[in-house]
Amino acid sequence: MSDLPGKVHILEAGPREGFQFEPPGIATADKIRLIEALAEARVPEIECASFVNPKVVPQMADGFDIAQGIRRIDGVTYGCMWLNEKGFLQALDSGLATPALTAGSASDTFLLKNNNRTQEQQLEGQRKLRRLYTENGLGAGPLYLFTAFGCNYEGEMPVARAMARLTELVTLCEEEGTPPSCLMLCDTIGAADPVSVRALVDAARTRWPDYPVALHLHDTRGLGIANAMAGLELGVARFDASVGGLGGCPFAGHKSAAGNISTEELVLLCDRLGIETGIDLGALIEAARLAEEIVGHPVAGKLAHAGLFNRRR
Amino acid sequence: MSDLPGKVHILEAGPREGFQFEPPGIATADKIRLIEALAEARVPEIECASFVNPKVVPQMADGFDIAQGIRRIDGVTYGCMWLNEKGFLQALDSGLATPALTAGSASDTFLLKNNNRTQEQQLEGQRKLRRLYTENGLGAGPLYLFTAFGCNYEGEMPVARAMARLTELVTLCEEEGTPPSCLMLCDTIGAADPVSVRALVDAARTRWPDYPVALHLHDTRGLGIANAMAGLELGVARFDASVGGLGGCPFAGHKSAAGNISTEELVLLCDRLGIETGIDLGALIEAARLAEEIVGHPVAGKLAHAGLFNRRR
Repeated sequence: MSDLPGKVHILEAGPREGFQFEPPGIATADKIRLIEALAEARVPEIECASFVNPKVVPQMADGFDIAQGIRRIDGVTYGCMWLNEKGFLQALDSGLATPALTAGSASDTFLLKNNNRTQEQQLEGQRKLRRLYTENGLGAGPLYLFTAFGCNYEGEMPVARAMARLTELVTLCEEEGTPPSCLMLCDTIGAADPVSVRALVDAARTRWPDYPVALHLHDTRGLGIANAMAGLELGVARFDASVGGLGGCPFAGHKSAAGNISTEELVLLCDRLGIETGIDLGALIEAARLAEEIVGHPVAGKLAHAGLFNRRR
Repeated sequence: MSDLPGKVHILEAGPREGFQFEPPGIATADKIRLIEALAEARVPEIECASFVNPKVVPQMADGFDIAQGIRRIDGVTYGCMWLNEKGFLQALDSGLATPALTAGSASDTFLLKNNNRTQEQQLEGQRKLRRLYTENGLGAGPLYLFTAFGCNYEGEMPVARAMARLTELVTLCEEEGTPPSCLMLCDTIGAADPVSVRALVDAARTRWPDYPVALHLHDTRGLGIANAMAGLELGVARFDASVGGLGGCPFAGHKSAAGNISTEELVLLCDRLGIETGIDLGALIEAARLAEEIVGHPVAGKLAHAGLFNRRR
């Protein structure tokens, strides 16, 4: 009936993708507090910052201070995000872990709005980045395909078009001698459903059996955890998620929509399915409540409000 | 891989279970407006009111006025709820549809808190109700098992205990000559997960292949739609849900937790899986926004905020 993985790796995107979606003004000290709480909950990988243009994304202007300020725990990877060479060099300087990140978008329009680039410009930029990665001794890193399932500007994404974009990006990585560590299929705007998740995961796995397929899901329309379940049942063992379900995408063409799937709900699902995550769910729920306190409005995640169900009484 | 039904019947519980969970004071006219909007969205069955003790549940004191006030549309069933003979006779008087409703609880403690009865008293009460049903010419109606998957007081519900309670209730219905129209397994407090849904649905279907198994799910901890998906894949073709995800249970032992699964998210899931519901999803989302306006706080459902994703551009 299913091919559930024994273990799942979760990247926590809240301090980056979550806080990026909030109005500017969240204190660096609060960001650090949340990152430390997440690390104490044993979240294995935390995206702490983004090195992007502070004029466009002022929320992420304090990446260096965050990198300097966090008290680190062994066994936790503290990472960050960037979109171009300048950002990558800042990320490198910051001391936050810098995998050989490659990114592209299935949707042309989203790429223009989010990265201000055409598909050709994006591929060229990614090629330059790969060379910088090699010069700096970076090996395999994840390959992100944004809007893999659809886009508010272009509608549903045909599997063939997503696969074509993915093929270009995988080929680029292979040509540069640093194949991707995973193929991260991103439901950037919450267009996916269990059927489309299965279709694209299947297509990618069939085409590249050696590259693990991963999922970055948003719960924009309430199907996020059902989509994660569909991925788990196909053996997907790597997910991005966001504490409290923080997040969204400022360039996705809608406001007030829910963000990423909530890390604690994904961990609850994994726990119930007998899948190991290494995460302390009770401590993670506390971190989600801290996130709620920091952003100053109710988070979208439901488990953070209800609390854990005590199965044994 | 799955045994998806071709068609799903959804009972909308928002005007009853949803408004019951809100503080008293929602105007009868607003309740009627919502019921009419739901009917216009072609929701096939709407639980409009509850005939219970107005001292305990003042939110439901206006059942008669609602029944009188609604402008009815052909093809929609307008129903209600009750817990005892007095309530049933009021329901009958009201002119709202009255199926031969039978109810019990897997958890003893929940039954005491919710219905102020022991298991024996509950069975005795249900037997009296069945006789009243027969006297009034009522045929088959749904059998509700509350806390079928767990309870905040007693923890996780073993399948064997849920099945034992279900067996008592089914036997009672059969003895009284009015077998249940469906076995509604209720995750009253959001304890279920896809594994426990499969286990209990399987057990009930195996034991009573002739009685359709149905699900009443809450999204208390964010797994509601994944649980619905698990049910759909086993062929479950009848669900309760609540517009906007309104609801909760005042006697479930927690506050501020999310309510029922949201009707519009369940319909979205069905639409995406190619399952017919007969419901106009766009109109239903508008009804969820009306529900939000009426309750005066954001509803838990996410689709109501994001809006429909336009797949074809």
